[in-house]
Amino acid sequence: MDLSELIRDLPDGAVLTDPDLTERYRQDWARDPAAVEPLAVVRATSTADVQTVLRWATTHRVPVVPRGAGSGLSGGATAVAGGIVLTTERMRAITVDPVTRTAVAQPGLLNAEVKRAVAAHGLWYPPDPSSFEICSIGGNAATNAGGLCCVKYGVTSDYVLGMEVVLADGSAVRLGGPRLKDSAGLSLTKLFVGSEGTLGVITELTLRLIPAQPAQSTVVASFATLDAASAAILAITRELRPAMLEFMDRVAINAVEDALNMGLDRNAEALLIARSDAPGSYAGREAELMLQACTEAGAVEAFHTDDAAEGEAFTAARRFAIPAVERLGDLLLEDVGVPLPKLPDLVTGIARIARHRNVTVSVIAHAGDGNTHPLIVYNPADAAQTERAQSAFGEIMELAIALGGTITGEHGVGRLKKPWLPDQLGPEVMALTERIKRALDPDGILNPGAIL
Amino acid sequence: MDLSELIRDLPDGAVLTDPDLTERYRQDWARDPAAVEPLAVVRATSTADVQTVLRWATTHRVPVVPRGAGSGLSGGATAVAGGIVLTTERMRAITVDPVTRTAVAQPGLLNAEVKRAVAAHGLWYPPDPSSFEICSIGGNAATNAGGLCCVKYGVTSDYVLGMEVVLADGSAVRLGGPRLKDSAGLSLTKLFVGSEGTLGVITELTLRLIPAQPAQSTVVASFATLDAASAAILAITRELRPAMLEFMDRVAINAVEDALNMGLDRNAEALLIARSDAPGSYAGREAELMLQACTEAGAVEAFHTDDAAEGEAFTAARRFAIPAVERLGDLLLEDVGVPLPKLPDLVTGIARIARHRNVTVSVIAHAGDGNTHPLIVYNPADAAQTERAQSAFGEIMELAIALGGTITGEHGVGRLKKPWLPDQLGPEVMALTERIKRALDPDGILNPGAIL
Repeated sequence: MDLSELIRDLPDGAVLTDPDLTERYRQDWARDPAAVEPLAVVRATSTADVQTVLRWATTHRVPVVPRGAGSGLSGGATAVAGGIVLTTERMRAITVDPVTRTAVAQPGLLNAEVKRAVAAHGLWYPPDPSSFEICSIGGNAATNAGGLCCVKYGVTSDYVLGMEVVLADGSAVRLGGPRLKDSAGLSLTKLFVGSEGTLGVITELTLRLIPAQPAQSTVVASFATLDAASAAILAITRELRPAMLEFMDRVAINAVEDALNMGLDRNAEALLIARSDAPGSYAGREAELMLQACTEAGAVEAFHTDDAAEGEAFTAARRFAIPAVERLGDLLLEDVGVPLPKLPDLVTGIARIARHRNVTVSVIAHAGDGNTHPLIVYNPADAAQTERAQSAFGEIMELAIALGGTITGEHGVGRLKKPWLPDQLGPEVMALTERIKRALDPDGILNPGAIL
Repeated sequence: MDLSELIRDLPDGAVLTDPDLTERYRQDWARDPAAVEPLAVVRATSTADVQTVLRWATTHRVPVVPRGAGSGLSGGATAVAGGIVLTTERMRAITVDPVTRTAVAQPGLLNAEVKRAVAAHGLWYPPDPSSFEICSIGGNAATNAGGLCCVKYGVTSDYVLGMEVVLADGSAVRLGGPRLKDSAGLSLTKLFVGSEGTLGVITELTLRLIPAQPAQSTVVASFATLDAASAAILAITRELRPAMLEFMDRVAINAVEDALNMGLDRNAEALLIARSDAPGSYAGREAELMLQACTEAGAVEAFHTDDAAEGEAFTAARRFAIPAVERLGDLLLEDVGVPLPKLPDLVTGIARIARHRNVTVSVIAHAGDGNTHPLIVYNPADAAQTERAQSAFGEIMELAIALGGTITGEHGVGRLKKPWLPDQLGPEVMALTERIKRALDPDGILNPGAIL
């Protein structure tokens, strides 16, 4: 494929073809083994660049894989044969309007950078994937990313008020705007959120912000049984509005304790970390009520602290669970979610699958919203174990579907979870999805192989 | 058109053709003068009934106008020539699951009935259109309805986690489910919210609930100038999270005072009513801060009350503004929204249009989210005045668009605002909308003439 036209129409250095340079754009964090060397990588600097790429790609029927920071965990940005990887990592402008409580951000900005830019105005952008220091806001929108705060504050979709998106044919459209309420026309903004680059390339986001709500009080509780921890989770979410309600199982507790030496109870089957960001003195009251729920559910040990640094240390420990468990081996990372009452069935079912497949599976969870991250530990040098791990990977998704859940709560389907999507959605919803895909990307050039 | 097959396949009495019986389904509250006697009205009792109607309609290329409670204000449910009006008013089941904090509701239930059913479990469904006692939850989803609480709690779209929807060909699909986080596949649930019956007929909704957050404290402030009131609004939303922040202009204040005799300041140019539902003692603190913002902005009179009945009386007065202004004449009801800093420009611009067209326009607003309801008063017996009122109706939407706003914040486009939609969205977004419409409703039988 002759790239000269594309190179001519883009800024100097925007098109990379040297394999040494394109290598780091070949895969995202999912390390999809199917990834191949791409035809080229384009580092767009503007909406116009993105339009140039898509016009060219439509003319020449070249697949385009949009890519944010490459921190995706489902292979949504796996490079495909003969395709362009189109990264928005250089599109990093942001303007914050404290009066409308909105920010207009380009997609390459990291989530943490958005948070910092708006914090300078006393404002907060809630969605907080654990990877917030390394994931891009464009990728967050493309996957409808979640995080720890979602139990109280909702997901990315709830904070995207508008966007500019470049369609397959290279036309750029503006959807929505800095208005909390807007019923004019179809909800196209929300359709593009979570579309994983299969319908268009997001080049700008208008984000809804709220005044900063600093966490005030943190509860930590350990449990000797999963059932006791589950009872505490349900009691808390039934009555209260925790700003965070996180879960770690015994494997994760021990892995974190190995790494951080915090004095966590190594014998506990479950650890819960909950936070209240209620304003004023009610945070302490809410923490007391959460503590009481844990105690009544049979917590072995439970305490709460109003010390911000101590609370942050426990939150950081929970965020550190994935790297900590990763010290045990390579990970297959799940993202299954179930309706909250099914959480114990999911966790015990996962333990059964782990025993049957003879692999270690550690479960950490955004427990308050039923979104779990089973971490399947394996050694890629051990072919038989790798195969058992992959079997467990599928069986856990099948279990989640059987429990009325989802194969992905916040990471997206990408390529790695695609085989299970029809089992969750059913043939009619898949057909509906394909109708929309065909209407918006008739030539199928946008992220082919992702989702569909 | 021979209806015998349709009558045969539906429950007894489901199909109405007697003009005396169909008359009340001919128009919604917008009283669209273009409404004609429909071919028939079908009162569906189940998803299967809806499927029967759409299969028959597709076979015979008959237009279908979906209808909830008929309280729509944009002519979204105007009966069309040779068409079926398909009402879901008889589909009224609800189940509440306090553990997942979700409700599964059929579309014919009124918003107030949903609120009451979930309140029995200590839960709350936030979206609260002023018409909540008479509007249906299905209609709320179809228009992405808002209300008074949206400034803090968001709109209908933020509370719809899943749905069952019947497509044009009669197939029924289930989208989403009782999960706060779900990134599996396209965000189809959100696409159908706000689609005004043009893409499918919603037959069931899975709604997200939160623990009840009763309003604790109410602030009432009157202002001698619009600028002072605007300054107070911006100061409040900049720092605080009011659970309600409502505005009435001088005409509305006087109309309400004529009707209710509450002692409102008839000389004020603007009245603000704000509420805090912060938990615990912080509500009082938040009310004090809101009061302070009003005073510093130059309020003529301002007070706050923790008395629930008194707070509710002022909220009810605001809700009563439309019927109160209606005593002055028939109303053309607008629903324009602008980014918050443009609110003074919008209100002064509306006053200019009113003077120019020599009609009375009263402005009430969900001020905290920039969504206003200019009420254009006219006498339909006065043809010249009616024409001037209609000119003002269009000019107000054009003004909102020019200010970067929307022609509809929460009522939907329907048929009455359709001529202005391309001015707001632009030709590319209209083309994108038509591509999705054609993909989902290739024969164009679903609510033809609404939105597009």
